[in-house]
Amino acid sequence: MQDQLPTTTPDTPLLEALESQQLDIRQLTEPQLLSLADEVRRFLLFTVSQTGGHFGAGLGVVELTIALHHVLNTPHDRIVWDVGHQTYPHKILTGRRAQMHTMRQAGGLSGFPKRSESPFDTFGVGHSSTSVSAGMGMALAATQQGIKRRTVAVIGDGAITGGMAFEALAHAGHVRPNLLIVLNDNQMSIGHNTGGLATYFAKIWASRAYISLREGSKKLLENVRTAWEVAKRTEEHMKSMVAPGTLFEELGFNYIGPLDGHDLPQLVQALGNMTELSGPQLLHIRTVKGKGYSPAEADPVGYHALNKLEKSDPSVPPKPPMPKPPKYQDVFGQWLCDIAAVDPLLIGITPAMCEGSGMVTFARDFPDRYYDVAIAEQHAVTLAAGMACDGLKPVVAIYSTFLQRAYDQLIHDVALQELDVTFALDRAGLVGQDGATHHGVFDLSYLRCVPNMIIAAPADENECRQLLYTAYQHPGAAAVRYPRGNGIGVPIESEMSVLPVGKGRRVREGEAIAIVNFGVLLPEALVAAEQLNATVVDMRWVKPLDEALLEALASTHELLITVEENMIAGGAGSGVAEWLAANGLQCRIKHVGIGDEFIEQASQQQNRDMAGLNAAAILDAAAPTAPVAAAADNPSLQAIH
Amino acid sequence: MQDQLPTTTPDTPLLEALESQQLDIRQLTEPQLLSLADEVRRFLLFTVSQTGGHFGAGLGVVELTIALHHVLNTPHDRIVWDVGHQTYPHKILTGRRAQMHTMRQAGGLSGFPKRSESPFDTFGVGHSSTSVSAGMGMALAATQQGIKRRTVAVIGDGAITGGMAFEALAHAGHVRPNLLIVLNDNQMSIGHNTGGLATYFAKIWASRAYISLREGSKKLLENVRTAWEVAKRTEEHMKSMVAPGTLFEELGFNYIGPLDGHDLPQLVQALGNMTELSGPQLLHIRTVKGKGYSPAEADPVGYHALNKLEKSDPSVPPKPPMPKPPKYQDVFGQWLCDIAAVDPLLIGITPAMCEGSGMVTFARDFPDRYYDVAIAEQHAVTLAAGMACDGLKPVVAIYSTFLQRAYDQLIHDVALQELDVTFALDRAGLVGQDGATHHGVFDLSYLRCVPNMIIAAPADENECRQLLYTAYQHPGAAAVRYPRGNGIGVPIESEMSVLPVGKGRRVREGEAIAIVNFGVLLPEALVAAEQLNATVVDMRWVKPLDEALLEALASTHELLITVEENMIAGGAGSGVAEWLAANGLQCRIKHVGIGDEFIEQASQQQNRDMAGLNAAAILDAAAPTAPVAAAADNPSLQAIH
Repeated sequence: MQDQLPTTTPDTPLLEALESQQLDIRQLTEPQLLSLADEVRRFLLFTVSQTGGHFGAGLGVVELTIALHHVLNTPHDRIVWDVGHQTYPHKILTGRRAQMHTMRQAGGLSGFPKRSESPFDTFGVGHSSTSVSAGMGMALAATQQGIKRRTVAVIGDGAITGGMAFEALAHAGHVRPNLLIVLNDNQMSIGHNTGGLATYFAKIWASRAYISLREGSKKLLENVRTAWEVAKRTEEHMKSMVAPGTLFEELGFNYIGPLDGHDLPQLVQALGNMTELSGPQLLHIRTVKGKGYSPAEADPVGYHALNKLEKSDPSVPPKPPMPKPPKYQDVFGQWLCDIAAVDPLLIGITPAMCEGSGMVTFARDFPDRYYDVAIAEQHAVTLAAGMACDGLKPVVAIYSTFLQRAYDQLIHDVALQELDVTFALDRAGLVGQDGATHHGVFDLSYLRCVPNMIIAAPADENECRQLLYTAYQHPGAAAVRYPRGNGIGVPIESEMSVLPVGKGRRVREGEAIAIVNFGVLLPEALVAAEQLNATVVDMRWVKPLDEALLEALASTHELLITVEENMIAGGAGSGVAEWLAANGLQCRIKHVGIGDEFIEQASQQQNRDMAGLNAAAILDAAAPTAPVAAAADNPSLQAIH
Repeated sequence: MQDQLPTTTPDTPLLEALESQQLDIRQLTEPQLLSLADEVRRFLLFTVSQTGGHFGAGLGVVELTIALHHVLNTPHDRIVWDVGHQTYPHKILTGRRAQMHTMRQAGGLSGFPKRSESPFDTFGVGHSSTSVSAGMGMALAATQQGIKRRTVAVIGDGAITGGMAFEALAHAGHVRPNLLIVLNDNQMSIGHNTGGLATYFAKIWASRAYISLREGSKKLLENVRTAWEVAKRTEEHMKSMVAPGTLFEELGFNYIGPLDGHDLPQLVQALGNMTELSGPQLLHIRTVKGKGYSPAEADPVGYHALNKLEKSDPSVPPKPPMPKPPKYQDVFGQWLCDIAAVDPLLIGITPAMCEGSGMVTFARDFPDRYYDVAIAEQHAVTLAAGMACDGLKPVVAIYSTFLQRAYDQLIHDVALQELDVTFALDRAGLVGQDGATHHGVFDLSYLRCVPNMIIAAPADENECRQLLYTAYQHPGAAAVRYPRGNGIGVPIESEMSVLPVGKGRRVREGEAIAIVNFGVLLPEALVAAEQLNATVVDMRWVKPLDEALLEALASTHELLITVEENMIAGGAGSGVAEWLAANGLQCRIKHVGIGDEFIEQASQQQNRDMAGLNAAAILDAAAPTAPVAAAADNPSLQAIH
C-alpha cells in the first residue's frame, strides 16, 4: 500500500522483459504475476501523477487485467472493456507504456479504449453499459465464422444499471453465446451508486453462509442443509442465503462468485475455467477502487480522476492562486439551490453525475428532492415526465452527450406531452481531453427539430443563471445548454429575472456584416467583429429564434455569420438559414460551427481551434468565398467512397 | 368464447348504467363485474370489427382493466399503461365508448393513451417500456406533495425487456416508491418474445411445486421442505423451484404471483391488498392475448391488429382485387433474402418487429443469421457494432422512430468507429393512424449531423432495393430510409447494382425553378413541376449531397425547392441550404417539409396533406413570398409564451 505518489520512474523489470518479448505474459509463474501487479500499479501511480487522468478505476483492476492477458490469447481472444476509465493497466500491458505520458493529450493516447489505437482495444467506449452487447456481437461473429475465440466483457456494477446492459443480458440468456462477463463490483459507479442492484450486490457479499457453502464443494449438500436450517425462519431470508447469483442465473447465466478481485491466483484459475465453458458465463468479483494507494482507497470519488502534480521549482516563490470565474456546472448548482430554497416543487435529477453536474450542495441540502437514478438516462427523463404530470417541477441535469441516450424519451414523454421539464445540458460543445465520445456537439441539431421545445444557449455565466431561471419558469419543455469549464468572469446577479423567450440582444453595432452568435463563443465573435467592424448579437435562444432581430439584421447587412459550438449540420445557424428561406429573404449567410467530422481529444482550447471555433474562422467566413470546387475534385465527396 | 365478430351493436346494460352514473364500477358485485367483462369483450369485438385496430392486447386485459377501475379511485388514483395497444377496454370504461368507432381516425380517439384525450389517460404511450419510470414519477410526486394516491403501472412481458424498464425497476427497488407494477405476462411482445426473461417467466409458470407451496400458506414450511426434497439433486433445480419471483425480489420488490389474469375475483382481491401496501410491489399475472375470441387466441400474432371488416353490399358484385405494388417493408424483406443467399456474412437484426419489418421469410430461411433481440433497440445497434468489428455484415431493420431509442449507440458504437452496419429505416415519414409517436420524421435531422454516415432516401421501390444494396456494399455506416405502405408500381429489377454514392438523377428538365426532391414525394414534385415547368431531380442521397448536381441547378435556376418527408428543421433541405451557404451561392431556396409541430393521427394521405407534403405545398413554395411578419404579430412566436 502506497500513500505517496512516486515522482521518479519506478523500476519495472518484468514489464520491460514483456515488452522486449523476453517473457510472455501467458508463461509467467504465479510469483512473477504478483510482481508484475506491483510493477503495473507503481507505474500507473507514477504516470497518472505526471499526466492526470482517471485513476481509481485503473488501480482497482490491475490484478484482473493481468489475469485476463495471462489466461487469454489476446488480441486474438477479445477483451471488451465497459466504461473506458479502467483501461490504463490494459494499455500499459499492451505495448503503450512508453506513451502513457501522452494520455488524453492532443495526438496522444486516448483515456478510453480506441480501436484505431491498438488491436488490443477491441471496442471503443466512452459512455457505459455497451460491453455486453458488443462482446456478444463478437462472440456470435466468431461462432458464425467457425473461429475458435474466447470473448470476455468486463463491466462494473455502476455500468450494469444502464438499461442496455440488461437488454443484452436478457438476450444473451436466450441466445447463449460463448461469452464470459466479468462483473467488476466496486460498490460504486462514478459517484455513489444507487438502485436495487447495489442493494442486491451488497446482499450477496453479506451472505457469508453462502460463501462458505460455495467454497466447500465436497460438503455441498450438507452445507446447504445447514444454511437452510439457519435461514428457514423466513422464506425471504432463505432465498437471499441460498441464491446470491439468482438474478443472473434466472436470465440463463452460469454464475460464479463472488471472488476477491485482487486475489490474482484465484482470478487466474476462475478465468481459466470459465473461458473454457460454453454458453453465457458470469464471474462476479469485488475490487477496491484506488487499490494500493491509500488516499484513493479512502476517497474513491475524489480520486476518480486526478489532475497532474504541478512541478514545483523551489527557487521560484509559488504564485498566489488566481481567483478563477466559477465553472458553469457550479453556476448551475448554485442556481438549483437558490430555486429549491424558494420553490418546494423543484426536484433535481441526475443520472450518476452528482459531482460533475455541480449538485453536491443540492444533494446535501435538499436530500428529499434529489434523485441520483444511477447510469440510467432513459429512466431519468421519463421519471421527470411522470413527476411533471403530477405537479412537480423536475430539472434533469445531464451532459449533452448523455442526453443522446434518452432522445426518444425526450421527444415522446416530455415534448409531445408538453410537460414542464427543464433540461440543464452541461458539457455542451467541445470538452477537451475526454475526446470524441464526450463532446456535446449534436444537441442543437437533435433538439431543434423537436416541436414544443425551447432551447437557450447562454453566452456567459450570468446569462446561464438567468436563462436557467427563465427555462424553469417556462411552462413546458426547455433546455439550457452550457459548456464544460469556467465562465468568463462577468458579475453574476444573484437576483433572478425571466428573460423574454426568443429575444436576443445587440452587443455591438457595425456595418455590412452581422455576427449572429449562439452561446459561449461570443468573445471570439467580438474579437472578429473589431477587425470587421461587424454587428454582433447574442441570440440567447436557438429556439424560438428572435425573428424581429433577424429581420432587422438581414435588411441592414450584406452577410450574416452564424456562430455556435455545435455541428453545422442542423445546428442553430441552419435554423437561421431556414428562417431566411421561409421568409424569402436574400441576405447572404455563412455558418461557423463544427464541420462533418468527429473531433479528437486535445485541450478544450485546442479542440476549439481544431474545429475552427475562433475569431480566425469567423474572419475566414467573412472573406469572399472561393468558387465551388467541381464535385470531381471535391476531396470530401471522394473520401466517402 | 366467440368465434365470429359481432356485426350488430351488442347489448350492454351495465356499461350504459355506468355511463349514466346509475351504477358505480367501484360498487359492483362480483356477478356484476363478471357480466361487465362479458359486455366489454363483446363491445370491443364489435367496435374493432367496425374500425380495425390493435386487437388481441385489449381482449387480454378486460378483466384486469375492470378490476383496476373497481379497486382504484380513478382518475385520482393513477393507472399508467405501458404500450398503448391494451387500452381499448380502458377507453370503453372511461366515457369513450361512444367514440370508439372513431378510433385511429382523423379527429377521433387515439389508438394509445393520450393525456389530452381524457384525465383517465395519465401518460401518453407509443413506444414501450416507459410505464415504470412514469408511474414512479407520479408516485413520488404524490408522496412529495402529501397526496394520498395509489399508482399502478401495467407492463407486458414484452415491454419489460426494454432496458429503460429495468433501469426503473432497479431505481424503484432503491427509492421504494408506493408503486404497484402489474406484470401482464402473455408470453409474447408484438412478435414472439425472445430473451432470457421469456425463459425466466416460462420457468415460473412451470414450477407447479412452487405454486402449490404458495397457495397453501398454512403449510408453508412443510411444503417448502417437500419442494426441497424433490429439488435437492441439483442446486440449480432447487433455486428455480423455490424462488420464482427472485429476480424482482432481489431488486427490492414484494412479488406476488403468478395469478390467472382472467380470474376477476382473484385479481380484485390481489389488487385490493397490494395497492394498500407501502413500497414497490409487483403482481405477476398471466393473460391470453385475444382472450374470448377463438381465432385471435389461436393466432395472436396475426390478430395483433385487425383491419376493419369490409361491408359487403350483396347487390354489387365484388370487385376483383387490384394487384397492389409491393409494400416497402416487403421490398426490404425480399432484398434481405436475396443478399443473404449470396453473402454468408449477412446478419439480420430486428428489435421485435419481424412481421412489420418484412422479415418473416428471412427468419424462416436463414434462422442462423436472424436475431430478434426483443424490444431492446440500444442492444440491437451495439450488438450489430460488435458483429461488424469481427467480420460480419449486420443489417439492423428498425423503424425510424425506434432508432430514436438507440441514437447514442449509433453515434458512438457505429459511426465513430466507422463500422460497417447497414440501417434499414422503415416507417420513415408520416405513418397515419398510429399518430405522433410513430411518425418517422426526425431521422434525417438526427442522422445528418453524425459524421461517417451516408444516408439514402429512395424515391420508389426499385430505387429502395438498389440503394439498400448500395448501402450494404458501402464499407461503413449507412442508412436507407423508406416509408410505411406501398410502392408506386415501378418495375423492380431483380439484378442489384451499386448506385454511385452521393449522385442524384435528373427526372425532368424545366426552367427557373428546380425541385430538389429527397424520397417518396417525387410524384408530388412531378405534378407541381408540370404546372411550374420546373426542373425535378431525385437526389437519392441526403448525405453526401450531389454537389455537382446542386451547383449546376443553382447556377441555372432562380429558385431551389427542397422536398422531403421529414422535419424542415435540420432536414435534407437544410443540408442543401448549408451547402449553398458554405459555397457562397446566392440561389433562392425554399423548403417543403414538416413544420415545427407534431402531426396527429389520420390516414397516411391525410397526414401528408395536413403537413403540407403535396404538390399544392410545392406550388405555394414557388409563389412569391409574402413580406416577413413583424415578430410582434407573429403567432408562432406568441404561442410559445
